[in-house]
Amino acid sequence: MATHKLLLLPGDGIGPEVMREVEKIVGWFRKRGLGFETETDLVGGSAYDAHGAAISDAAMNRAQEADAVLFGAVGGPKWDSVPYTVRPEAGLLRLRKDLGLFANLRPAICYPALADASSLKREVVEGLDIMIVRELTGGVYFGEPKEIVTLEDGSQRAVDTQLYHTHEVERIARVAFDLARKRRNKVSSAEKMNVMKTGVFWRQVVTRIHKAEFSDVELEHVLADNCAMQLVRWPKQFDVIVTDNLFGDILSDIAAMLTGSLGMLPSASLGAEDPVTGQRKALYEPVHGSAPDIAGKGLANPIAMIGSFGMALRYSFGLLDEADRLDRAIANVLASGTRTKDIAAPGANAVGTQDVGDAIVKEL
Amino acid sequence: MATHKLLLLPGDGIGPEVMREVEKIVGWFRKRGLGFETETDLVGGSAYDAHGAAISDAAMNRAQEADAVLFGAVGGPKWDSVPYTVRPEAGLLRLRKDLGLFANLRPAICYPALADASSLKREVVEGLDIMIVRELTGGVYFGEPKEIVTLEDGSQRAVDTQLYHTHEVERIARVAFDLARKRRNKVSSAEKMNVMKTGVFWRQVVTRIHKAEFSDVELEHVLADNCAMQLVRWPKQFDVIVTDNLFGDILSDIAAMLTGSLGMLPSASLGAEDPVTGQRKALYEPVHGSAPDIAGKGLANPIAMIGSFGMALRYSFGLLDEADRLDRAIANVLASGTRTKDIAAPGANAVGTQDVGDAIVKEL
Ligand SMILES: CC(C)[C@H](C(=O)O)[C@@H](O)C(=O)O
Ligand SMILES: CC(C)[C@H](C(=O)O)[C@@H](O)C(=O)O
Repeated sequence: MATHKLLLLPGDGIGPEVMREVEKIVGWFRKRGLGFETETDLVGGSAYDAHGAAISDAAMNRAQEADAVLFGAVGGPKWDSVPYTVRPEAGLLRLRKDLGLFANLRPAICYPALADASSLKREVVEGLDIMIVRELTGGVYFGEPKEIVTLEDGSQRAVDTQLYHTHEVERIARVAFDLARKRRNKVSSAEKMNVMKTGVFWRQVVTRIHKAEFSDVELEHVLADNCAMQLVRWPKQFDVIVTDNLFGDILSDIAAMLTGSLGMLPSASLGAEDPVTGQRKALYEPVHGSAPDIAGKGLANPIAMIGSFGMALRYSFGLLDEADRLDRAIANVLASGTRTKDIAAPGANAVGTQDVGDAIVKEL
Repeated sequence: MATHKLLLLPGDGIGPEVMREVEKIVGWFRKRGLGFETETDLVGGSAYDAHGAAISDAAMNRAQEADAVLFGAVGGPKWDSVPYTVRPEAGLLRLRKDLGLFANLRPAICYPALADASSLKREVVEGLDIMIVRELTGGVYFGEPKEIVTLEDGSQRAVDTQLYHTHEVERIARVAFDLARKRRNKVSSAEKMNVMKTGVFWRQVVTRIHKAEFSDVELEHVLADNCAMQLVRWPKQFDVIVTDNLFGDILSDIAAMLTGSLGMLPSASLGAEDPVTGQRKALYEPVHGSAPDIAGKGLANPIAMIGSFGMALRYSFGLLDEADRLDRAIANVLASGTRTKDIAAPGANAVGTQDVGDAIVKEL
């Protein structure tokens, strides 16, 4: 029996609470004979409190060894003024960079039962199913120089650098086109080619890869500002959206919010396939943040975190039946009305974080 | 009688059509004794076709001499493959930069009569009135290096540079706080301080100006991705949003789309006040683009363009009564049901661009 090594990094805020529910699910699959080994470590503010760094080298080593990392959430007001290099987010950024997780897949799905929770009209979002493919290890997140400099007259200047290389755009474009083939066969590539050279470049490379390898897929180019607008106006026009790290950060948050169920949305961050083993490094995390305001109260919705484990079953372990089974269990629990406060039907009783985890286990 | 020199730059697509309606309005005010002098010149693709540049030096000189520039829209598929330096948008960017128009004011107002045109639920957007204050002459739009370089192995790298100086952030922060005092006294400052040094810097400078000069105004800091989400979730939580050039581009487009009436929204781009004359350079333009798909058909909604002239009355000429009068005329025409297709009530007959202009003149 294959052993799957999972590293759990619950992090801060509601991270530990929602991760606890995933552990129940993992436990259920383990009892059914699947070889999951789990380890747990610190990341974010909790790692800073323990080690003075947002992730320790030991935890990084464990992440490198793991078949998949499950990540909760990081950050909170407690760490708002820690030095820049050790702020909670630095742990997540180091994981992404050092594991080479260049492809961030963020599905935005509007569950019919929850369409009314959206701030958008039901007909605009009902049945929505789009996939944002965000470049995750390049762009303005990691480009140098990145600094604040004090000038002779005492004033300052701050700089960030948006940087892309050919191979970085090529490989993320391939991920997007590949996914589109399994979906509705359309890719929308978003950049600001009218003001950014990286945008001009992005469009050129995506166009070239499309012509050479994916001419069967429909490709459209859209300016990032217009893409944001169109997401609000009529999101169902999109299938797969591919974009850079910074635009992806914003566009995927908009897409997530459209669905009305932020607490429901998982994400996967994938590395390159090893040409020999076919394995790829991977990290799975909910789209929502650490929600310090409700942390520790048992109110958080664990479904995004549990769904992230579902994505791990699918993308890291090829356990498609198990992934489907988990997705169905989640859908059934939702339909039964067992819901946390964020998605409870008007007038219905909301249940706690643990209740949802228990209900999903029972449903499995 | 004071003479107000207006330079009209209709540009491309629907630009000329909507500008023609503004000329009617200007004509009406002129007949009533106000000293408006107008000149017209080319910008964008039409300037490229005529001069091989997105704006000629002669037109730039006229813009420098004018008391206010009225700008239509630029761009269209016809010029999609012209060289980067002479693409239509370069004309607008040169105007902004050379006139020093650092403060872009974009009101997003949801007219009650039009709330149903929004893709958002009525209760989410009805009565919405927010002001996006976007820094317009700095950031990634103008920072150097900005280039695509071919490397020795034949691959390429593309770079853009996000750059801010102390005085640039200070002056835009002051504009935002000043405006907030005349509104609901709250400023939300948006950046990505968790990944960008310019974000850390932005937050520091805004905080300092707030403490020193505007501590009576409520200030909150919000991450740009979260700001985008919150705009979709519950936009009425905002009053004034101040942000950098690139985030402002996206956030203001989202805010505009929330209102359901993109064809209605004007904007003002203002320079620094001359310490002696108190005058400031200014450009006024609709938030919508050149809409090549409907250009030349008499379908475009001219209200955003006419409202931009209304902002000129207010901000450049201090003609507050006249600005109010124009705003009232627009509101009355809307209420009467004289509307272009984009905002026509379901089942109602849509009128053409000229009809709306004529109706507003009549209402005046
Ligand atoms: C926490 C933060 C660094 C991160 C990002 O900006 O990438 C988050 O917003 C995300 O989208 O995963
Ligand atoms: C036309 C383009 C250069 C411009 C920008 O990106 O600033 C536009 O999107 C805007 O918001 O005014």
